[in-house]
Amino acid sequence: MLPVNADRFLADLHTLRSFGAAGVGKGVVRPAYSDADIAAREWLVGRMGEAGLSVHVDPVGSVFGLAEGASLLMGSHSDSQPEGGWLDGALGVIAALEVARASVEAEGPPVSVVSFQDEEGRFGVTTGSAVWSGNLSLEKADGLTDRDGVSFAEARAVMPGRLDGFVDPARFTGFLEMHIEQGPVLDREGEAIGVVDAIVGIRDMKITLEGEQNHAGTTPMQGRRDAFQALSRFNALIAERFANVVTPSTVWTIGHVTLHPNASSIVPGKVTFSMQWRDGDADRLGRMEAIIREAAEEVAVSGGFDLRFGPMLGLEPVEMDARLRGALEQAAETDVPGRWRKMPSGALHDATNVSKLMPVAMLFVPSIGGISHAFGEDTAEADLVTGLRVLASAVEALG
Amino acid sequence: MLPVNADRFLADLHTLRSFGAAGVGKGVVRPAYSDADIAAREWLVGRMGEAGLSVHVDPVGSVFGLAEGASLLMGSHSDSQPEGGWLDGALGVIAALEVARASVEAEGPPVSVVSFQDEEGRFGVTTGSAVWSGNLSLEKADGLTDRDGVSFAEARAVMPGRLDGFVDPARFTGFLEMHIEQGPVLDREGEAIGVVDAIVGIRDMKITLEGEQNHAGTTPMQGRRDAFQALSRFNALIAERFANVVTPSTVWTIGHVTLHPNASSIVPGKVTFSMQWRDGDADRLGRMEAIIREAAEEVAVSGGFDLRFGPMLGLEPVEMDARLRGALEQAAETDVPGRWRKMPSGALHDATNVSKLMPVAMLFVPSIGGISHAFGEDTAEADLVTGLRVLASAVEALG
Repeated sequence: MLPVNADRFLADLHTLRSFGAAGVGKGVVRPAYSDADIAAREWLVGRMGEAGLSVHVDPVGSVFGLAEGASLLMGSHSDSQPEGGWLDGALGVIAALEVARASVEAEGPPVSVVSFQDEEGRFGVTTGSAVWSGNLSLEKADGLTDRDGVSFAEARAVMPGRLDGFVDPARFTGFLEMHIEQGPVLDREGEAIGVVDAIVGIRDMKITLEGEQNHAGTTPMQGRRDAFQALSRFNALIAERFANVVTPSTVWTIGHVTLHPNASSIVPGKVTFSMQWRDGDADRLGRMEAIIREAAEEVAVSGGFDLRFGPMLGLEPVEMDARLRGALEQAAETDVPGRWRKMPSGALHDATNVSKLMPVAMLFVPSIGGISHAFGEDTAEADLVTGLRVLASAVEALG
Repeated sequence: MLPVNADRFLADLHTLRSFGAAGVGKGVVRPAYSDADIAAREWLVGRMGEAGLSVHVDPVGSVFGLAEGASLLMGSHSDSQPEGGWLDGALGVIAALEVARASVEAEGPPVSVVSFQDEEGRFGVTTGSAVWSGNLSLEKADGLTDRDGVSFAEARAVMPGRLDGFVDPARFTGFLEMHIEQGPVLDREGEAIGVVDAIVGIRDMKITLEGEQNHAGTTPMQGRRDAFQALSRFNALIAERFANVVTPSTVWTIGHVTLHPNASSIVPGKVTFSMQWRDGDADRLGRMEAIIREAAEEVAVSGGFDLRFGPMLGLEPVEMDARLRGALEQAAETDVPGRWRKMPSGALHDATNVSKLMPVAMLFVPSIGGISHAFGEDTAEADLVTGLRVLASAVEALG
């Protein structure tokens, strides 16, 4: 294993946390291009230089610390949610920095480091890596605005030290991203490491059922075309039919519901709701879509509702690269035998975009209580260090 | 039967419709104290005087046409919803006017007429009759405001001809109110008359279930405490348990739903929803309440949700007076044998308030397609005239 220094790693992690420290638990307030985010990135530029890496801040403010020649790229993002956890992407950036630094010191394999900009989506979704990978043009990105109407173009202009060009992805042999799980599985099972097999695909669409708005006193139950009741039937129907199709990792959510007119004395005539489902297998996503469409049709036809499906957002699942993933699995089995698992990532990550450019793989450490995107997010120190060691072992093995 | 004049009745009904005529179907725009409402009430004052009644406009603008001595009171309200039907309460006012007029002409039993103010609730709920009955103090009513912030005190001040005192209810022997059904039952069954047996009681409360807000990608289905799923289970559970308790006239409605945070990528952590149920029998309302509270508790305990019940609005059912109702039933059976039914009123009416002061009964005529509180509301002319005749027969029989 590369001789990584756990104390130095933890010290850097706590220093990064001091930028935008929330004063509530260990949380941070460090959204993309905020003063705290920019200060953190400037500090990172310094640390990369001290580690012997050559710094390149790209046009959107993603910070690269480059090794000479062909290298493995490692990292994640150091921006946070408006009320974020201290680890999240920051963990992956500092772990990458320590591995790269140790590799320079030990004359190990060349490792480059990156902190992508705006992963948390103040503007788009994983904006920095999306632009770098070509999934989103810089022109389109520049037109995106945050909640206050500030454009991405305006925001990125304040980031100092940016260069004109993007880093050529051809110089990298692959990408490894360490991240907190953001879910409860590893913590609940007492496991130390999750090796990601796939970043799940997402399907998301709005569905509208329109029946008949009526007086809640004078309209008998039998003649009603109550949109809330239709939604409730649909919800029960898909749960029943999904049972034969899903795995324990599959998830689906009705997270948004708008009833019309949404008054206690009126039988609701219309409902629009979100239907989102995620799975690592594209075929399964398709089978679930068929069930959703059929169930909605059945509810609509049997109850006399008009049915409209909104446009469907489709993000395909991303398989992790077998060689990179195999190195992580081997390292986990050596370091924490029986205390790691293969698992899908239910959340998007920068690795989703980077997979367009090169082989990628991901490593998870436990999130205590599954808490994420909140000041209460944390991971046991021992688990942070285990993650670092597994990463270092895998890098050495990959050569 | 008193010699009512169907042509004169229909002509008056159409004249009243001309005040605030919407230009869309037969609908009217005549909310309480609008120019159209005030003009309609001034016309009504004139027609009452021509019919030999003594006019009394009370402090809130309810218009009474009084017969001498003890009399039966008949009527409803001539204000409309912001987008209202042409009949609704106007039908009951004009039918009462025609019966009173015919009774004066034929020297029949003394009949007084009323058009209550603001039944449709620009300010409160059945405001005019609520103040008259003492269910709502004038002082409290004056503090009510409409959507634009206008107070009831300001609004009633513009109504001309108001007197200082309220009409003494002791002069009336009972109250008969004719109204459109506002529901689909009579129209669907091809019946001409509904004799109301009770105005249903209403229970209405907000229920809150609070689980855990989570990432919709990283939180497995099994560990979720999804507030929408809890609501959906509760909805199915009460429907199942109500089956043994309810009658075909019982209704219940979940008309308002607020999910938090109501975003497609977040497992909803909290839901607040309205639970409203109506029935003519107070015991049944109580049994339904027990089912609701038990079902909510079960869902909360089994799924790990915090449960909060908001304050419950309770309006008790109002039984119609046996003697008045018997006269209406007898008249209906004579006029349209086999084409009438006893039925509850699922909506509130002025008669609810007036029942505090004297015996009350109500008569319904069909609403085509069950449409109410909309420009499309209508009733076949033959059914309007049947309603008038049944009313006139009952008044004569009551003496």
